[in-house]
Amino acid sequence: MTDHIQFSPEKDCLVLLDQRYLPNREDWFDVITTDDVCYALVTMVVRGAPAIGVTAAYGCYLAGREVQKDGAADWKAELDAKLTQIHDARPTAVNLRWAVREMRRIWAEAGDVSLEALLAIWLIRAKEIHVGDIEMCELIGTFGGPLIDEGDTVMTHCNAGALATAGYGTALGVIRGAVDQGKKIQVIANETRPFLQGARLTAYELHKDGIPVKVACDNACALLMKQGMVQKVVVGADRITANGDAVNKIGTYGVALLAKHFGIPFYVAAPLYTIDLETACGDDVPIEDRTPREVTHIGDHQITPDGVEVYNLAFDPTPNELIAGIVTEKGVIYPPYKENIAKMFE
Amino acid sequence: MTDHIQFSPEKDCLVLLDQRYLPNREDWFDVITTDDVCYALVTMVVRGAPAIGVTAAYGCYLAGREVQKDGAADWKAELDAKLTQIHDARPTAVNLRWAVREMRRIWAEAGDVSLEALLAIWLIRAKEIHVGDIEMCELIGTFGGPLIDEGDTVMTHCNAGALATAGYGTALGVIRGAVDQGKKIQVIANETRPFLQGARLTAYELHKDGIPVKVACDNACALLMKQGMVQKVVVGADRITANGDAVNKIGTYGVALLAKHFGIPFYVAAPLYTIDLETACGDDVPIEDRTPREVTHIGDHQITPDGVEVYNLAFDPTPNELIAGIVTEKGVIYPPYKENIAKMFE
Repeated sequence: MTDHIQFSPEKDCLVLLDQRYLPNREDWFDVITTDDVCYALVTMVVRGAPAIGVTAAYGCYLAGREVQKDGAADWKAELDAKLTQIHDARPTAVNLRWAVREMRRIWAEAGDVSLEALLAIWLIRAKEIHVGDIEMCELIGTFGGPLIDEGDTVMTHCNAGALATAGYGTALGVIRGAVDQGKKIQVIANETRPFLQGARLTAYELHKDGIPVKVACDNACALLMKQGMVQKVVVGADRITANGDAVNKIGTYGVALLAKHFGIPFYVAAPLYTIDLETACGDDVPIEDRTPREVTHIGDHQITPDGVEVYNLAFDPTPNELIAGIVTEKGVIYPPYKENIAKMFE
Repeated sequence: MTDHIQFSPEKDCLVLLDQRYLPNREDWFDVITTDDVCYALVTMVVRGAPAIGVTAAYGCYLAGREVQKDGAADWKAELDAKLTQIHDARPTAVNLRWAVREMRRIWAEAGDVSLEALLAIWLIRAKEIHVGDIEMCELIGTFGGPLIDEGDTVMTHCNAGALATAGYGTALGVIRGAVDQGKKIQVIANETRPFLQGARLTAYELHKDGIPVKVACDNACALLMKQGMVQKVVVGADRITANGDAVNKIGTYGVALLAKHFGIPFYVAAPLYTIDLETACGDDVPIEDRTPREVTHIGDHQITPDGVEVYNLAFDPTPNELIAGIVTEKGVIYPPYKENIAKMFE
């Protein structure tokens, strides 16, 4: 698949494949200003926790370039405000906060540097994070592939694929890992209302890669599981808390409960920096409440009556007891999670 | 609400509110021929098990009128074929089969009548079924209302409302019953992919009646239940088998499993003739496999990539052990269902 996050040295900007119009239109979106960065994050031109992290890292660099062009006397205060703006663009994925903090850490360590010098350091670091993300995903595939058996049908929810990362994917990294290890498997992509990341993005990228995929409405989950059509579930995570709870796209919790009921192993795949040791459990993670329009409209087509309110909480926490294993770039973490997560960070 | 199923004596045809275009367009659809009847059933101009039954009853009359106009020598053979065509239009809801069988029974009992006479008898019977359906729904409300407590938020899936019956509704009949009994309650309508009966129809008719309703994506179910936002679940049924399993819109089974997990009572509301004593259990009911386009497109908007297959099974069976009670026009049936259903038919 084409790299959907690209830094253009010529244009000195970030160029993103606009995921709002996939699978049927491949538009590219130039990200130049801090407002562009936040717009791309909030409207989900780019989405998926690791991809958000990579975008935010480049975003800090772009914010600095914008401040430089503005030529403000107090560039530090202006830049600081812009970093906060990026940091606060979306509340749930820890990767966004991580990336902005990482850039702040570098700034603090660099001491009394010029803005020009800081920008040079930041661009190098953003590129490292970008490349490093793909490497982490490939390692997730290496460690996760063996969890999938020959002939399995794997259900996944939302898109934790190449399009949610810098490439290769986390949950889809596990699936690609199994395929790369020579297994013949197929995938059921839950369509994942309201934003339809499964129907639009997971189906798109797996189909492009020639991995057999069928789309199911989220409602079909229980019946498909009961009919023996699902052998494993693998999903990504926007934030994993210290106790191993995994906050992921709305609906994940229901899939996990159903998987438990039917005795189907449910795995979470995410790079280690998705684990937020500062947050004790999933219920402590802020859940983003997104615009009603994602529920009331699909494209320009209104599906609810005028005047009727809707819920649009974007994530839910899945308790650790429903999770068979957490696949990271350093190996699979098994229960008891609190202890084994802590060990992984020693 | 306006009666959405109307027989027009002037036009000598059935006039249906076209549910495909709700909530945002109120079109009416004239049903004149047998092909019209089947088209309206298959494409879901009209849907909902009891409404399908009423439509099929009028449909038999319209088939007879068509045969009369054709002036075929062997009108009996021609009519017989048309009744079979209506009978087979959709496989899951028992009400369709029931209505056609009822018309056949009347025909057999009438003996060697003229087609003209048979049509007169059939039209009277169709109108009885039509009016009787509303009365049954009101009784379901009378018996079901007391199951709902003051202040409850009731979740419902799909549309088992006025639009799924001749009026008042089954699941929404229980809700209307509670409201008529003076309780202040509110409703969460699961949007119910793929056909969005919850978002489009349940929200439309409750909002029109001033009953507080919010729409949630099907994916939000587990989180809403966990947050204590749901006190009861009430759904309809397309067929209830002799053991009390309830076959209903795809996704119902998942909602029932989640309700069980969270200790939320899950009720099914349906007229007694929805109970199919000839079928032992839910797994024996044929599940309709509908056109992929309902999943791949919303309106004219394509959401899946070209070339990717989808699942579109339209119903799932909910096992009796997940059901707290079955609300009928003769009272609430409680477990053990096999025994208590049999008693109800004595």
